[in-house]
Amino acid sequence: MSIKDKKIGFIGLGTMGAPMARNIKKAGFSLGVYNRTESRAEAFRDEGAAVYYAPWELAEDCDIIIIMVTGPEALLEITGAIQEVLKTGKTVINMSTVSIDATMQAAEIVQSRGAEFVDAPVSGSKKPAEEGALVILAGADSRLLDELQPLFESMGRDIVCCGEVGYGTRMKLVINMLLGNMMASFAEALVFGRRTGLAFETILQTITAGALGSPLFKIKGQAISEGNYTKNFPVDLIFKDLNLVLHEAGKVGTPLPLASATREAYSGTVGLGLGNEDMAALVKYYEKIADIKIVDGGK
Amino acid sequence: MSIKDKKIGFIGLGTMGAPMARNIKKAGFSLGVYNRTESRAEAFRDEGAAVYYAPWELAEDCDIIIIMVTGPEALLEITGAIQEVLKTGKTVINMSTVSIDATMQAAEIVQSRGAEFVDAPVSGSKKPAEEGALVILAGADSRLLDELQPLFESMGRDIVCCGEVGYGTRMKLVINMLLGNMMASFAEALVFGRRTGLAFETILQTITAGALGSPLFKIKGQAISEGNYTKNFPVDLIFKDLNLVLHEAGKVGTPLPLASATREAYSGTVGLGLGNEDMAALVKYYEKIADIKIVDGGK
Amino acid sequence: MSIKDKKIGFIGLGTMGAPMARNIKKAGFSLGVYNRTESRAEAFRDEGAAVYYAPWELAEDCDIIIIMVTGPEALLEITGAIQEVLKTGKTVINMSTVSIDATMQAAEIVQSRGAEFVDAPVSGSKKPAEEGALVILAGADSRLLDELQPLFESMGRDIVCCGEVGYGTRMKLVINMLLGNMMASFAEALVFGRRTGLAFETILQTITAGALGSPLFKIKGQAISEGNYTKNFPVDLIFKDLNLVLHEAGKVGTPLPLASATREAYSGTVGLGLGNEDMAALVKYYEKIADIKIVDGGK
Amino acid sequence: MSIKDKKIGFIGLGTMGAPMARNIKKAGFSLGVYNRTESRAEAFRDEGAAVYYAPWELAEDCDIIIIMVTGPEALLEITGAIQEVLKTGKTVINMSTVSIDATMQAAEIVQSRGAEFVDAPVSGSKKPAEEGALVILAGADSRLLDELQPLFESMGRDIVCCGEVGYGTRMKLVINMLLGNMMASFAEALVFGRRTGLAFETILQTITAGALGSPLFKIKGQAISEGNYTKNFPVDLIFKDLNLVLHEAGKVGTPLPLASATREAYSGTVGLGLGNEDMAALVKYYEKIADIKIVDGGK
Repeated sequence: MSIKDKKIGFIGLGTMGAPMARNIKKAGFSLGVYNRTESRAEAFRDEGAAVYYAPWELAEDCDIIIIMVTGPEALLEITGAIQEVLKTGKTVINMSTVSIDATMQAAEIVQSRGAEFVDAPVSGSKKPAEEGALVILAGADSRLLDELQPLFESMGRDIVCCGEVGYGTRMKLVINMLLGNMMASFAEALVFGRRTGLAFETILQTITAGALGSPLFKIKGQAISEGNYTKNFPVDLIFKDLNLVLHEAGKVGTPLPLASATREAYSGTVGLGLGNEDMAALVKYYEKIADIKIVDGGK
Repeated sequence: MSIKDKKIGFIGLGTMGAPMARNIKKAGFSLGVYNRTESRAEAFRDEGAAVYYAPWELAEDCDIIIIMVTGPEALLEITGAIQEVLKTGKTVINMSTVSIDATMQAAEIVQSRGAEFVDAPVSGSKKPAEEGALVILAGADSRLLDELQPLFESMGRDIVCCGEVGYGTRMKLVINMLLGNMMASFAEALVFGRRTGLAFETILQTITAGALGSPLFKIKGQAISEGNYTKNFPVDLIFKDLNLVLHEAGKVGTPLPLASATREAYSGTVGLGLGNEDMAALVKYYEKIADIKIVDGGK
Repeated sequence: MSIKDKKIGFIGLGTMGAPMARNIKKAGFSLGVYNRTESRAEAFRDEGAAVYYAPWELAEDCDIIIIMVTGPEALLEITGAIQEVLKTGKTVINMSTVSIDATMQAAEIVQSRGAEFVDAPVSGSKKPAEEGALVILAGADSRLLDELQPLFESMGRDIVCCGEVGYGTRMKLVINMLLGNMMASFAEALVFGRRTGLAFETILQTITAGALGSPLFKIKGQAISEGNYTKNFPVDLIFKDLNLVLHEAGKVGTPLPLASATREAYSGTVGLGLGNEDMAALVKYYEKIADIKIVDGGK
Repeated sequence: MSIKDKKIGFIGLGTMGAPMARNIKKAGFSLGVYNRTESRAEAFRDEGAAVYYAPWELAEDCDIIIIMVTGPEALLEITGAIQEVLKTGKTVINMSTVSIDATMQAAEIVQSRGAEFVDAPVSGSKKPAEEGALVILAGADSRLLDELQPLFESMGRDIVCCGEVGYGTRMKLVINMLLGNMMASFAEALVFGRRTGLAFETILQTITAGALGSPLFKIKGQAISEGNYTKNFPVDLIFKDLNLVLHEAGKVGTPLPLASATREAYSGTVGLGLGNEDMAALVKYYEKIADIKIVDGGK
């Protein structure tokens, strides 16, 4: 049976999940959906999707079950709930970001029933989810990933085969560690530049023009410039991820001096009560310790 | 007198200076050159440039004197040597990277003779110098910078007006601090990813594909992949710049935890005897402390 | 009933627990003991202690139950096992080092039965345990601590009332954080001094002679001098405690840059496979990153 | 000629120098003094010392010349001023704290005249200077140090022979690095403890009671408790020393992660305008970043 003939079930229709499910439908797949809050699922009925009222109903009826929920508890709850109806021939894809341990526990449950498991967390936020332009970090054997390629392509622009099950999650941690370190590096450049008397806009222009320029610096620079700290990715979550990174690094005895310094800076940001603002609010912590306003004025 | 009618003198025809001078000539300016090692200057004669045998001869004959030498001592030596022939109507542009103090000392000497001074260090290495694609970080009043625009455009793709004299140098320090922090952040991502079992090429591909991607990561990733640590920008120089950054930050009491952690990592790299390799050799220090090979093997 | 008339039960007769129990007996208290490995308990019979074969038997028979086990799991297991026989008039004292969360869970179980709970972890290792010279960090209301004073004095030289239940554990984390930071500070002084060419013994003598001298530096300096890394307090445990400290600090958003740098250095020490050596083995990590032998030779 | 028959000249009668010179006289040596501000020297006349009005007059007349001034510039100025009258048989002892470079330059000047040079910076502040209880960190060959022993004993309680000329200064840097790291470790313990709700006095009592206790923690704890930040050793000086340490460590490529983190914390303290307060004012920086008062209140 070709993947195009398989029935896809999508569990978790939140900010990320809803547009991802929609893109699967648009690509011509047969789609079933489940969401804890039923109204979010109902909205998919008009778009031609089957709506289920329990995860196990969806899992019984579909060949491929995608899970996109928040955190390890929700993942393990869903996995437990569908366990009974899993069997050889079915595939479960977890796209939520969780710890390596939670990924491996979910995999064990699924595989113990003869079904296949893929971990495939995504890099990218709401906009790339809507545009089908996510980066998908997939862990499974390559034969299975090849087979799933058309499905992943409906949601993502880049599909990275990271290795066996668990390696998608590992890659996600690496990326979010780098994300944290780059944000802190950026904040230091801004605060140091401002303390020497340079204007904010000039620093930003120079950074983004050269070899150091990245989409991240453009996006976060713009947000800081506008004083817009509405969360895309909140302080609390990047702090949680940095803790997870240091936990994993500690298990293998790998010192990460910058990630550790970044973690402390985010700890201070949490201490300022900014956990629910966007990760760019790190600059507010730097403003405090360096006693300078990053945006107004300047020479 | 329009800038196109002015005579440009270029002092310092090294790896960066030679292509910069050549681009000035190509843009149609009248060019004179001086270099301590005469043979390098002679090569310009066939290209139609006037060759001088002492800095003061060049400075006497030219309207705009560009200095592109290595370090503060050389800058102050040249400035001292040409001091006597400077006068109102002449402009001295220092494009070498030096400390803020050295910049201000050179400016004072030049201005005390009634001449004008501009600091305009560049961001970019050999290749952008050849292609006239440097980023020029200029400090001077905006009227003067406007006037010099056509001259700068012959060498650079982006000309950033950073503020008064001294602010070009400040911006250069900000950029090189960010450069160091990003290199260390990149090295940590590679070493952490490798320790969790991910393959080097996969990590590199994922980093460069998404919002964290920057030309720097592509270039240095390629170099690490090939084991090519031939210096573009050596460990010794980025270490020197990080020390300079921390010195300046200390003067204004601005804590820079990441820059400081990066400085320690580069200190360790120097300790391994790698001062003369490219700044990407930082990964060798990380390989040592984490006991892992970044390139070979992987899952 | 005076405390001298109460029956004391001691659960956990390990390296620390055995001498602590013995000191209680010596001070004239009526003592009962329980240990998972029975032979260790049997040894107390000749000394006049009652020996129990289940924690609940001990808890049923004794007025004050002291728990000295390793880690939160063991504490909660014991607390669960004795829960049924606890009642008003009985007191449970946990002297094991565990997390704040585990302490509070144990307290809740005990208090829900109408019994009283005290957390009283100790600072000090085998030798002060034998000499009755521990520092006891006690958390409970002061009336209860006053009553327990004679009992604590049989084991400790200093009894610190840290506040309500949970505050003994908090103090233990503060002390162990300082312990880690001081060990790392000491290692840096040794490695830096040796790299400048100073002799190890001279550095050690100078440090211990002045205002910076502490018993810790004498003891660890001696051990390093002898190359004796037999664990008093192993790398794995101080690393675990530093992780716990950073976890607690993160919950209240308190940046701890030194503790965080110390944690990374210990992470590297774990990475060298030294987790089971004494915490002083941190110097071996520093020797590696600085490429110097701390002990032999010197100028 | 025995040392007791030699004429001792003391240059620099400041807070430290005056009591040191006085103790030399009390020990029965023949003393001559010089101070830039003459009145400070005049005060010694009544005590039986010879007073000189120029450094070279003192150096011409005395066998052993002790220099106790502030910083490398003053040392090199004095050394230059006495150079002409130095000759074989005379000894110059620098007891000021300066950089290794300045020490070696002064040594070269003195030795080029056939005289002998000793570097002997001291550890300890005003009170031990008055009590003749300084720790003297001496660099010179051991024969010379043996000969000078009675002189050093008049000023100090411990005389440490650190190695050849320059090694006294190296040891001073090691000690002050450890001093900085211990102060920062102490501040972190206080701020973390306070954030978990512990009372300041209880934390202080616990730290000073056990194996981590040092005279430093007692003294600084007392000062913090009283809010007394009158400088014994000011923030600006410990910050300067930490910069010097990192500079020297960078020359030999030795990473010092804690010293570097301590330096950043002191940089932030300088940024708060506290450079002229005692080094214990570091706690004010920690109070700021952790948003907590260390002294008042507490549970």
